[in-house]
Amino acid sequence: MSTLVFGHKNPDTDSVCAAIALADLKKKLGEDIVPAMQGALNPESTFVLEKFGVAGPELVTSYAGKDVYLVDHSDLAQSPDDLGEANILGIVDHHKLGDVTTGQPLECWIWPVGCTCTVIASMYNYFDVEIPKDIAGIMLCAILSDTVIFKSATCTDADKKICAQLSEICGESDLEALGIEMFKVKSAVEGTPIRELVFRDYKDFNMSGNGVGVGQLELVDLSIVDGIKADLEKDIQALKDEKGHHSVFLMLTDIMKEGTELLIASDDASVVEKAFGVAPADGKAWLPGIMSRKKQIVPDLEKTFG
Amino acid sequence: MSTLVFGHKNPDTDSVCAAIALADLKKKLGEDIVPAMQGALNPESTFVLEKFGVAGPELVTSYAGKDVYLVDHSDLAQSPDDLGEANILGIVDHHKLGDVTTGQPLECWIWPVGCTCTVIASMYNYFDVEIPKDIAGIMLCAILSDTVIFKSATCTDADKKICAQLSEICGESDLEALGIEMFKVKSAVEGTPIRELVFRDYKDFNMSGNGVGVGQLELVDLSIVDGIKADLEKDIQALKDEKGHHSVFLMLTDIMKEGTELLIASDDASVVEKAFGVAPADGKAWLPGIMSRKKQIVPDLEKTFG
Repeated sequence: MSTLVFGHKNPDTDSVCAAIALADLKKKLGEDIVPAMQGALNPESTFVLEKFGVAGPELVTSYAGKDVYLVDHSDLAQSPDDLGEANILGIVDHHKLGDVTTGQPLECWIWPVGCTCTVIASMYNYFDVEIPKDIAGIMLCAILSDTVIFKSATCTDADKKICAQLSEICGESDLEALGIEMFKVKSAVEGTPIRELVFRDYKDFNMSGNGVGVGQLELVDLSIVDGIKADLEKDIQALKDEKGHHSVFLMLTDIMKEGTELLIASDDASVVEKAFGVAPADGKAWLPGIMSRKKQIVPDLEKTFG
Repeated sequence: MSTLVFGHKNPDTDSVCAAIALADLKKKLGEDIVPAMQGALNPESTFVLEKFGVAGPELVTSYAGKDVYLVDHSDLAQSPDDLGEANILGIVDHHKLGDVTTGQPLECWIWPVGCTCTVIASMYNYFDVEIPKDIAGIMLCAILSDTVIFKSATCTDADKKICAQLSEICGESDLEALGIEMFKVKSAVEGTPIRELVFRDYKDFNMSGNGVGVGQLELVDLSIVDGIKADLEKDIQALKDEKGHHSVFLMLTDIMKEGTELLIASDDASVVEKAFGVAPADGKAWLPGIMSRKKQIVPDLEKTFG
């Protein structure tokens, strides 16, 4: 039975591409392993895989009895519900250390960089395995996506250095153009159901016993969502009630203006002012300079709830 | 304020030497960092540091408000009591993933190898930093200690390969002789209070809500403890009562015969037969081939309690 490697629920481009890349590397190191994912591909990931001619991971929802590697997360809330019955061989990630634990020694490569694929490309280098051209292309896109074309606060020199290497391997030299091409696909909202937009890049957190959901739409221009903003606000309110959460937030991030309009559905909206120093008006707050959920939203919210 | 790097409570040679080595590496990578330890040096560690002329880490018991790296553990039970008030920058380890979590991205190098120092020596290689002769010597000893001179089930090819490299750097060519010299120091019991022997290499675990303590004495010959065995049995019973634990076990490991006599103080000694298939007699059980607490004792106990 093959080992499975997979990213978080509601997979984004990093979760998908990291699973594919780690499976490729581990296979070359002698393991019987295939990439998997917990949910369907989003439009951006579909675009990236098609662009470089790479097949998507298998959709797998149950992992009981399997040997597994986790990529791009170490939180039980973002893992399969039956992860406790799987045997975790390792974790490759770039987030805070979550509440996943193991009963056996394992292999963790978790670095404070902008993208899991930066860590995996470094692993190829460490194990002296050549990075294939197509895998280089999708890892490059994952890093451009996670670091918002190097603009995010999460972006490090290690990400830029690895991108230069990947760019040379896959032959994509204009990274700004490649990034904007990708973000235009990511920005598209026409014809997409509202709930699907809320869930496009959405994560649940347990903050000191409070359920908190944070979604994010990265947009090349905020005006793209002008016509549907009221519907988005209504939907995160409904989602909060369905989940019994304390709060559900939706980040509308303008990647060119480099800031986020935060839509708020909360039992106590004052957490937003406490966390970010901006008083919400009419269920919304503009947070200049804020582009990263992981580095600029979640830690401050956790401190406020803690 | 310098960052502190430290190993688990009741520090063993790996925890001490890994802290010293990681501090050396990180300092050379530009960080302001010093090694620390949560408790006093044991006789083996003292011998190793003296042999290579390396100063011991500072004894530090409170870590609140400090930036820290953890080595050789990721369990809260083995961490400082005020770890929650520290800022964890990273973890270098070779155990199962414990219940330490963070609010910020961090740097984890956790590999399923025999010793933390094997991971740290590999980090020197990854970052292309030269390993100093004295640091190579103490890392070599830590690996020989943790892998019981390559005999433990935890020992991997990576450990042996790194030892060959370290041996060349520090000029110690007879690793078997160096290992036995070290284990003779470790085996010495004369003049040491009984409780100190129980605590020489002791760890507490939370197994599905049950407190379980497991100590280990690695001996070049079991006969060394013939005269004090009854006192050791009495003392782990007392320790179990003091801690309110379900069980306290003491592994008397014969590193030459390659097996362990397990001394048992337990509310329900049948867990030993369930976990290891050997019925205890008179509060003791001989477990042939068992030498590793981490790989051969703790996982089977956790399954039995789980």
